[in-house]
Amino acid sequence: MARTGRRPGPSRTREKILAAARAHFAREGYERATIRAIARSARVDPKLVQHFFGSKDRLFNAAMRLPIDPGAVIPSVLAPGPDGLGVRLVRTFVGIWDSREGRHFVGLLRSVVSRDEAASLMREFFTHAIFGPVSRLLDVDVPRRRASLAATQLVGLALVRYVVRLEPVASADPDDLARWIGPAIQRYFTADLDANAPRP
Amino acid sequence: MARTGRRPGPSRTREKILAAARAHFAREGYERATIRAIARSARVDPKLVQHFFGSKDRLFNAAMRLPIDPGAVIPSVLAPGPDGLGVRLVRTFVGIWDSREGRHFVGLLRSVVSRDEAASLMREFFTHAIFGPVSRLLDVDVPRRRASLAATQLVGLALVRYVVRLEPVASADPDDLARWIGPAIQRYFTADLDANAPRP
Repeated sequence: MARTGRRPGPSRTREKILAAARAHFAREGYERATIRAIARSARVDPKLVQHFFGSKDRLFNAAMRLPIDPGAVIPSVLAPGPDGLGVRLVRTFVGIWDSREGRHFVGLLRSVVSRDEAASLMREFFTHAIFGPVSRLLDVDVPRRRASLAATQLVGLALVRYVVRLEPVASADPDDLARWIGPAIQRYFTADLDANAPRP
Repeated sequence: MARTGRRPGPSRTREKILAAARAHFAREGYERATIRAIARSARVDPKLVQHFFGSKDRLFNAAMRLPIDPGAVIPSVLAPGPDGLGVRLVRTFVGIWDSREGRHFVGLLRSVVSRDEAASLMREFFTHAIFGPVSRLLDVDVPRRRASLAATQLVGLALVRYVVRLEPVASADPDDLARWIGPAIQRYFTADLDANAPRP
């Protein structure tokens, strides 16, 4: 068969940029990463990266293969204020994860745990996409501590529901999960965490 | 080089039995699994399995590569009664995971998420080693629901502390973690979970 001599198509170039972006974000962290350095590592023109993804933020979301834009979801969950925040967060996340778009989430979670690069990406994701908005929009002390504690509960919920598939959490209605787990998240965001644990 | 003609040594036989046990427990579940069927699958005499591991319970712990025997730890954590249970559980688990014996825990967690067999094993582990004792020793309604919710929090803590390594959870003192996270676990075991979420 004759070779066509074509250059790599746009989808292959796009994937090459995303692979370079994942490695770069994982190594440098979100703040230090630049579109210029990612373009250099992918051996493409920075203008092409701009053309495909528009901004560092959107490139990061694409590299994480996020089904939704957390920059849009988080503020709408936080907007009504601190009351009921925990229930809204659980309901929103489970709704996304259960949806068709969220089906690749198990794959993301698997890769997070099996590859160091993915674990770094997940860490950058929380720091950049979750902690940032939470600190800006919620007027609480120790926002990083609160958000990382909320992360333990949300990530664990995802792992037990979709990967370990432990009942009754695996098949529970999202509204039930929100009622059971929401108050734990609520406490992480609004309670005095250094108060002594409940006594008899 | 001349072949020695030796039969497989005890450590290779032991590993062969453990591999057969992991596959069998994952496929059949703990309750249905038998030492006889595991021996058949490993092509060894059931007496040899008895000799190496003594009981189905100890074979399961060895197959899970558990650094400690949950059958010994869980009752001692539950024994003082429901008060302060959450704090004790977090303090005990973090203590085990942080220890030298617990270092392979990240490996276990990685394999849980990257392989279906390991996820099934983890599910069996919770059902057999955690839910059983909790139901027997703690006089509460819906014990499986409570234990699976506590599992979401504990598994998520391990994932965020040791794999994603998100700060400040990653470096926090075990006593701080117990104070911050213990009350969430306490609530799962002792509160009315179907009460409405807190309102303004």
